[in-house]
Amino acid sequence: MTYPDTFKGIAVTDHANWKNVSQLDYLPKHFDDHDIDIRVLACGVCGSDIHCASGHWGEIPKPLVVGHEIIGIVVKTGPRCDSGLKVEDRVGVGAQALSCLDCDRCTHDNEPYCPNRVSTYAKSYRDGYVSQGGYADYVRVHEHFAVLIPESIPSHLAAPLMCGGLTVFSPLLRNGCGPGKKVGILGIGGIGHMGVLLAKAMGAEVYAISRTSSKKADAVKLGTDHFIATKEEPDWHEKYFDTLDLLVICAGSLTDVDFDTLPKIMTVGGRVVSIAIPEQHEILKLKPFGLVGVSIANSLLGSMKELKELLELVAKNNIKIWVETIPIGEKGVNEAFTRMEKGDVRYRFTLVDYDKAF
Amino acid sequence: MTYPDTFKGIAVTDHANWKNVSQLDYLPKHFDDHDIDIRVLACGVCGSDIHCASGHWGEIPKPLVVGHEIIGIVVKTGPRCDSGLKVEDRVGVGAQALSCLDCDRCTHDNEPYCPNRVSTYAKSYRDGYVSQGGYADYVRVHEHFAVLIPESIPSHLAAPLMCGGLTVFSPLLRNGCGPGKKVGILGIGGIGHMGVLLAKAMGAEVYAISRTSSKKADAVKLGTDHFIATKEEPDWHEKYFDTLDLLVICAGSLTDVDFDTLPKIMTVGGRVVSIAIPEQHEILKLKPFGLVGVSIANSLLGSMKELKELLELVAKNNIKIWVETIPIGEKGVNEAFTRMEKGDVRYRFTLVDYDKAF
Repeated sequence: MTYPDTFKGIAVTDHANWKNVSQLDYLPKHFDDHDIDIRVLACGVCGSDIHCASGHWGEIPKPLVVGHEIIGIVVKTGPRCDSGLKVEDRVGVGAQALSCLDCDRCTHDNEPYCPNRVSTYAKSYRDGYVSQGGYADYVRVHEHFAVLIPESIPSHLAAPLMCGGLTVFSPLLRNGCGPGKKVGILGIGGIGHMGVLLAKAMGAEVYAISRTSSKKADAVKLGTDHFIATKEEPDWHEKYFDTLDLLVICAGSLTDVDFDTLPKIMTVGGRVVSIAIPEQHEILKLKPFGLVGVSIANSLLGSMKELKELLELVAKNNIKIWVETIPIGEKGVNEAFTRMEKGDVRYRFTLVDYDKAF
Repeated sequence: MTYPDTFKGIAVTDHANWKNVSQLDYLPKHFDDHDIDIRVLACGVCGSDIHCASGHWGEIPKPLVVGHEIIGIVVKTGPRCDSGLKVEDRVGVGAQALSCLDCDRCTHDNEPYCPNRVSTYAKSYRDGYVSQGGYADYVRVHEHFAVLIPESIPSHLAAPLMCGGLTVFSPLLRNGCGPGKKVGILGIGGIGHMGVLLAKAMGAEVYAISRTSSKKADAVKLGTDHFIATKEEPDWHEKYFDTLDLLVICAGSLTDVDFDTLPKIMTVGGRVVSIAIPEQHEILKLKPFGLVGVSIANSLLGSMKELKELLELVAKNNIKIWVETIPIGEKGVNEAFTRMEKGDVRYRFTLVDYDKAF
């Protein structure tokens, strides 16, 4: 094996044929003093992977290895590493690989909002190297963006927490989800199902909101206290008037939301937070009248501190997210992409069997 | 005098000639058990008066007496009044005349958000009577919506606090304005100038934001710590990147705001609150990307509890808002409307000399 000179990954080479991925060798980024190398064990398949691979978020440098819900074993640490992580530790890496670590945002646990953030894949480091993700045998990142995984959480269940889980946990945490609060999760998909599990574990009264009741049974199993099928209950916004303190939108984007009716179910001071990454040119049209007494915001990932809190919460409450595993490889990634595109996933894929593939 | 059978007011009779107001007699609403009658001493001229009188907010029942920044003397109390207000008290009435006082919102100091609220003018009570405002010799309202005015605040300076002052105070209070916080006031007009005075008195570091520097000298006199002239400083959003914890928009409406640049000056978790009453059919178009880490909301008035807090703050800090008085009457209201329409007001008009007019 040629490690660490060359990594092997399952790469997207062409947006037009984005599902036809290819295994190839590539050079990792320069090994900096605070970098660590991680031998990958598992990687979640995130909606962002699909958006990037398909070109839906615009042209990206190719070939590109996506994947930013990475669990693996530390195999090398940089000479100035001081985070406490050491070789043999099992760690996780999410959607962020670097930030300046120096600005006000970085020093106040807002690394995802650092203007100089580098995403785990498809973004350029200062030297021009384009970051590569976790559909690969190894990844190399700054130690700050790796977190120790509690022993009790299996890798395939830990992986989706790294991006999807953190993305819904951060707005729950930042907006007061907890005992005595009524919290809605709109969109019961990969991220939404984690939202229900987490909001419940945080002590809130949970309202799962979906268009139809097709996911009602699942939502109840996940622990939701209430289920609203908006297409099947025409008067849902009257029935649930003035109910939610917080609503996390886990479906599509803010532009999919009916702001003529949705704010009615919010309390005064209620907060609506979307976790979808909006497209640069997407335009949200809404009646400001719908925002009377209600705020809307868009949230980004979460901080490393929040990721640690999330892992503690999951370990302590023995939360089991719903994951289907698929062996990594050209075939496996193709299957994951194909089924994700069709929405044929309940509720999250994790790529596994890395030792057999590479 | 025919009190209380008939009130006299300066009324709008025609949207097309809305500035040509006429004095007329009209019957007050039915005197309910918790109602009080107030002999008016002064009434502020609010932007809402102009919007309603001109038909800008749609057709309204006419003739209509506007005015919802009312200061006056209690002359009669209903048989079941128990708020403590008594005849001879000097009280204030703002933009709200009634709510159900029974729902969750009313019982948690959110009367302005009660679905059954009745505005001080132009809205129907349950019996169909259309409420009439304070450009009149008397007003009649439920005791809950009148507040005792501290002795030290003159009537002409107290009046604009009832709506304009409360409207900017409520979002400041609800969103943590205080020591250690950086708070922006966008739009240095009638309400914005009160926003600067109040945010400063609450202990925040204040950023007054205007298009040009024409109001800079005034803003500095009002106590602002910083002044941003957005049309004169092309790089203002870079210079003030990541600065404000709270921004209260006191100009126009959310639809006037450039959400491509404005969110850049907000901290992560920063809140943008507009206090303009949006039009029912107004559409806000914005890029959700601008809302990453930043929330927007629209605020309505404030509660009676907040109004009491506001008056205490103003009295304690001896805050003097900037008011020009105009004698009430057909001529005076015409002058006020004409100058308000032109923006020729620094920064608020209060109609006075009621004893001479009626």
